[in-house]
Amino acid sequence: MGKQEIRYAAKVSLDTPPPEQKVLHNRWHPDVPSVGAIKNGEVVKIECLDWTGGQIGNNDSADDVRDVDLTKIHYLTGPFDIETAEPGDVLLVEIQDVQPLQEQPWGFTGIFSRENGGGFLDEIYPKPAKAIWDFEGIFCSSRHIPGVRFAGLIHPGILGCAPSQEVLETWNTREAELISAHSHLDKPVAQPPEPQNVHAGTASDDIKEKVGKEGARTIPGRPEHGGNCDIKNLSRGSKVYLPVHVKGAKFSVGDLHFSQGDGEISFCGAIEMAGVITLKFTVMKDGVSQLGMKSPIYIPGPVEPQFGPGRMLYFEGFSVDEKGKQHYLDATVAYRQTCLRVIEYLKRYGE
Amino acid sequence: MGKQEIRYAAKVSLDTPPPEQKVLHNRWHPDVPSVGAIKNGEVVKIECLDWTGGQIGNNDSADDVRDVDLTKIHYLTGPFDIETAEPGDVLLVEIQDVQPLQEQPWGFTGIFSRENGGGFLDEIYPKPAKAIWDFEGIFCSSRHIPGVRFAGLIHPGILGCAPSQEVLETWNTREAELISAHSHLDKPVAQPPEPQNVHAGTASDDIKEKVGKEGARTIPGRPEHGGNCDIKNLSRGSKVYLPVHVKGAKFSVGDLHFSQGDGEISFCGAIEMAGVITLKFTVMKDGVSQLGMKSPIYIPGPVEPQFGPGRMLYFEGFSVDEKGKQHYLDATVAYRQTCLRVIEYLKRYGE
Amino acid sequence: MGKQEIRYAAKVSLDTPPPEQKVLHNRWHPDVPSVGAIKNGEVVKIECLDWTGGQIGNNDSADDVRDVDLTKIHYLTGPFDIETAEPGDVLLVEIQDVQPLQEQPWGFTGIFSRENGGGFLDEIYPKPAKAIWDFEGIFCSSRHIPGVRFAGLIHPGILGCAPSQEVLETWNTREAELISAHSHLDKPVAQPPEPQNVHAGTASDDIKEKVGKEGARTIPGRPEHGGNCDIKNLSRGSKVYLPVHVKGAKFSVGDLHFSQGDGEISFCGAIEMAGVITLKFTVMKDGVSQLGMKSPIYIPGPVEPQFGPGRMLYFEGFSVDEKGKQHYLDATVAYRQTCLRVIEYLKRYGE
Amino acid sequence: MGKQEIRYAAKVSLDTPPPEQKVLHNRWHPDVPSVGAIKNGEVVKIECLDWTGGQIGNNDSADDVRDVDLTKIHYLTGPFDIETAEPGDVLLVEIQDVQPLQEQPWGFTGIFSRENGGGFLDEIYPKPAKAIWDFEGIFCSSRHIPGVRFAGLIHPGILGCAPSQEVLETWNTREAELISAHSHLDKPVAQPPEPQNVHAGTASDDIKEKVGKEGARTIPGRPEHGGNCDIKNLSRGSKVYLPVHVKGAKFSVGDLHFSQGDGEISFCGAIEMAGVITLKFTVMKDGVSQLGMKSPIYIPGPVEPQFGPGRMLYFEGFSVDEKGKQHYLDATVAYRQTCLRVIEYLKRYGE
Repeated sequence: MGKQEIRYAAKVSLDTPPPEQKVLHNRWHPDVPSVGAIKNGEVVKIECLDWTGGQIGNNDSADDVRDVDLTKIHYLTGPFDIETAEPGDVLLVEIQDVQPLQEQPWGFTGIFSRENGGGFLDEIYPKPAKAIWDFEGIFCSSRHIPGVRFAGLIHPGILGCAPSQEVLETWNTREAELISAHSHLDKPVAQPPEPQNVHAGTASDDIKEKVGKEGARTIPGRPEHGGNCDIKNLSRGSKVYLPVHVKGAKFSVGDLHFSQGDGEISFCGAIEMAGVITLKFTVMKDGVSQLGMKSPIYIPGPVEPQFGPGRMLYFEGFSVDEKGKQHYLDATVAYRQTCLRVIEYLKRYGE
Repeated sequence: MGKQEIRYAAKVSLDTPPPEQKVLHNRWHPDVPSVGAIKNGEVVKIECLDWTGGQIGNNDSADDVRDVDLTKIHYLTGPFDIETAEPGDVLLVEIQDVQPLQEQPWGFTGIFSRENGGGFLDEIYPKPAKAIWDFEGIFCSSRHIPGVRFAGLIHPGILGCAPSQEVLETWNTREAELISAHSHLDKPVAQPPEPQNVHAGTASDDIKEKVGKEGARTIPGRPEHGGNCDIKNLSRGSKVYLPVHVKGAKFSVGDLHFSQGDGEISFCGAIEMAGVITLKFTVMKDGVSQLGMKSPIYIPGPVEPQFGPGRMLYFEGFSVDEKGKQHYLDATVAYRQTCLRVIEYLKRYGE
Repeated sequence: MGKQEIRYAAKVSLDTPPPEQKVLHNRWHPDVPSVGAIKNGEVVKIECLDWTGGQIGNNDSADDVRDVDLTKIHYLTGPFDIETAEPGDVLLVEIQDVQPLQEQPWGFTGIFSRENGGGFLDEIYPKPAKAIWDFEGIFCSSRHIPGVRFAGLIHPGILGCAPSQEVLETWNTREAELISAHSHLDKPVAQPPEPQNVHAGTASDDIKEKVGKEGARTIPGRPEHGGNCDIKNLSRGSKVYLPVHVKGAKFSVGDLHFSQGDGEISFCGAIEMAGVITLKFTVMKDGVSQLGMKSPIYIPGPVEPQFGPGRMLYFEGFSVDEKGKQHYLDATVAYRQTCLRVIEYLKRYGE
Repeated sequence: MGKQEIRYAAKVSLDTPPPEQKVLHNRWHPDVPSVGAIKNGEVVKIECLDWTGGQIGNNDSADDVRDVDLTKIHYLTGPFDIETAEPGDVLLVEIQDVQPLQEQPWGFTGIFSRENGGGFLDEIYPKPAKAIWDFEGIFCSSRHIPGVRFAGLIHPGILGCAPSQEVLETWNTREAELISAHSHLDKPVAQPPEPQNVHAGTASDDIKEKVGKEGARTIPGRPEHGGNCDIKNLSRGSKVYLPVHVKGAKFSVGDLHFSQGDGEISFCGAIEMAGVITLKFTVMKDGVSQLGMKSPIYIPGPVEPQFGPGRMLYFEGFSVDEKGKQHYLDATVAYRQTCLRVIEYLKRYGE
């Protein structure tokens, strides 16, 4: 048996601006050119930038969070052609390992400015804030949050196959209707295609223009392909079953997290990082109809930190807002109120 | 040291109709008479009927689920005066054990009729259904769902202290506004006080009438006192911190579950049972302000079944309904769609 | 469905001296009379005294540990005839629940005097000591070991079926040879039959005399039937497969523990208690040959406390004794040295 | 912040014969020259060969196991000088990651020939055997053991600091006495220094000769420094506290395992592999006396696979050998008999 070193299907640079890196893109579109082929059954390593493409620095100011340019994100690595994959197949992606980039052993969490990005609690916490986390093996700690050190569960926030033109049109129609129906609100309810700062990898100018006009933004997950799933324990040993919509699948991945809670209440609540993910790809022919699949299926791996008794605390959620008004089965109100109570508790008792 | 057998603070009967049992009640109201005193620091056993008070039989017909009388429920045991407890205190309730009644080692799950009770998926599953579960120690199985046997995690669905008159008025005002604001809907969004079938324990007729007119229904949890929390792992070894609103706390408990999932999608999705719960009560003087408590805090115990790797499957939720329409951050739509996908998956693959 | 309360196959008394209680015995012998029949498939409750039969008191003196009469122990409850069980069958015993006796919510650990009982470390700790543990639900704490409180995992130390006369003779021959071979040692290496204080339940005088002369002591486990297995997590939900040697199996159980470590270094290192165990019995016809069974098989249940990260500490064992002499692969030396290091560590750092 | 890529403190080659690789050695001796310095507080990567130094091939014949040259093993990487470490200090080693070498994603388990190496059960299984395990991320499977695939818990078998000359002499005296006391046995009870095939890194000829004459073999662990500890869950996130005996500590590591059981019954029962380990070193000044340390302390990390209920099976051990003879508290006999029963069970039922 000869040497079998796992090959890098793509590498990123921490020095070159992301728009100049050919293996990246930041919209979902079938015409983004493939950056390489991966065999059915192959295991590869794929490097990823952090989701902002390096806009956030390892320093003590939140100005970069305040000023983040959200037309640029998320920078994903890919798309990759998976050999033999065709529409109707399912792409089984097995996560063999996820690690920070060795040359950048830190990540960040951020509270976004209400004026730029916002987040679940932006009415109460409208100002930007940032914490830098230093990684030591599986543990992380932050000079901005003294006294906290814990084992992360590293995972990708985004992975998925490209939409077909037809799926893309479904998305654009559906989301345009949503935006139209909420035009009275003073905040964005979805993000329509955005030509500014579009990155379509090595696409020619006309393709790039098309991707800018039509390409789906990467922030929301979507049932047809998954995308931004943010499942906190999708770590080593996990399996993801993704529906294939175009020839070659055109798989992309990015938005790696060192750790995440059960939600992202501050928009950037995971510990965001650049890293390298080791994936195995297997094509299941005709899998979509065989599995009756309408959206991806995720099977978290067997390895996760055990936190032990007395380490979990529950606050129940109720649909009564901070003004005492009750809402009908409104999980959003309930979740917000619960978050606020947890925050009060942590302020009072820390860990 | 003499004998120290744990005393029963209350026993229930499976033969006497619940309305005739003095230790039960089915509304939250400060005037429901206490059924007994419990010392600060005391450990007692409290028996509870199943939440319907025996309306559901151990048989193979769902007619009783279809015809359940929801004005009667939930039958709770209590209220108990906890000595020294006063408004502003916190009542710490430690769950030492929860067991089915030995003479009734079975429980039930039910899908409620859309015409009577309904539930989260009643548009898709409008007809009543029922499964009886037989208990064998910590395991349960059902002749109506062959091939499934698992270890339950027995817990109380409802526990809380009585509201003060002031808290009760807050509830009634708040919920009346909610009902008023949704009068255009063809379904109930909250349950106003209901004199029919009110049970106020040993209350005199005029008190009983008052409880019927003002008493809060037991179905929803409410932030001021907890109530119907339905936390699936609030089992042996758990602690609950409850705000006290009236002198003596007037604590009640009921709605025991042999096991429950992460939600109750069919309204009666837990395995409902009659049983006995062993509780220790400790009064924390002035606890509400000391803890900055706005709603109860729950600390699940250290003991729970381990299900091991590859036993969990995730389906992501998306706010796109079955007609393809997208909703703005609508957790209800997302949860419903996810439930439907899980049901399809289970139909196809069983366990 | 009528009432189905689980019946007590045997109850014990905390007031009557154990030798006068008909449901107890303290030797393994096929002629100890059955105390009752249990159906194949039946679930019953069985009460047990603590292993010493109440010789140890809830007080602050270790005199009772020093003076314990070891010819009396262990008091087991039984034997029970399991209907249809015959030699060659396997008796499947499922542990549905184990609880302390409600009227005695405490237990004890003891270090035995080197002069009476001794234990693994009796050369270093020759003096008797005792700690009383108070039970609160699944938790225990001791006034003799301040600051320690933890969740127990209640289990039976001893369960097994009676030996046949042939098996008994094998034991007696084998152990007599062992004793003979170690006659030069100044300590007992096995315990031969002991007529003094024999308790054979309701046996007639001549049978009792026979049991005294031939009956196997209960301290060691033995491969042919299990007996004193002391498996720390053989708690609720566990299964035990026991070979049957006599008609009716003649099953006995006792020596309940509130909690135990990975060994019993002080002879009485578990938290010993009186209690009640709920068991289901199922006869597997011809199971011994079908399973190729040479000794019992134990399957611990799915429920156990999780202690979380950083709560375990390992000390390696080495076959070098405290005088620096090395022994050849001697697990006993290694284990003793490791115990001593753990003790030193705990003395220095507490928990 | 600039790039901070973790540096390799040592790399190994799969092509160069181990005796020619300067970063390896295979005896414990204070005079083996340091292969490099590591700062107090530094994190480094260290590559290791498999323990045999590549003697075992990825093929289907056990001839290489039969013929393994045990004078050559274990090839360890090091020793490293940890700056500021001095005798009396404790070296805290934190395991941040352990991975197979990417170019060799496989390992092996072996049953050694009774004539060469042997093992715990060599009287019953005297012939050599081998299984090759292929790694896929955290999972492994073997073409030689069809149907088995599981998540490993990668860890180092050996890590420790060099003995001082004084400690080394203690070892050699102690082990010589052991050998002398067992000269009547027909098998080795310890391994005295062995000049043949000694590898002392870059040592000059005379030093190498000294190391050959005096150097301690790497097979046994020893209390004074740890060495071959083989703790199965000493994986990512673990901490090891090692006593320092010489200036600079002279730390070495090797014998990486992809997975291991609770013992090594076949001498080579772990899945042996070449790999890379990421370690952080911290010097605790005067730690030996402060911790009262007599042997290393190991704190396993928080991450391990969960296997779930019904996945564990216990067989009790008894000191009765296969001929029916009873031994006095002989853990070796008990363990051997239990192993044989487990083997019979697995033969009958597989997984």
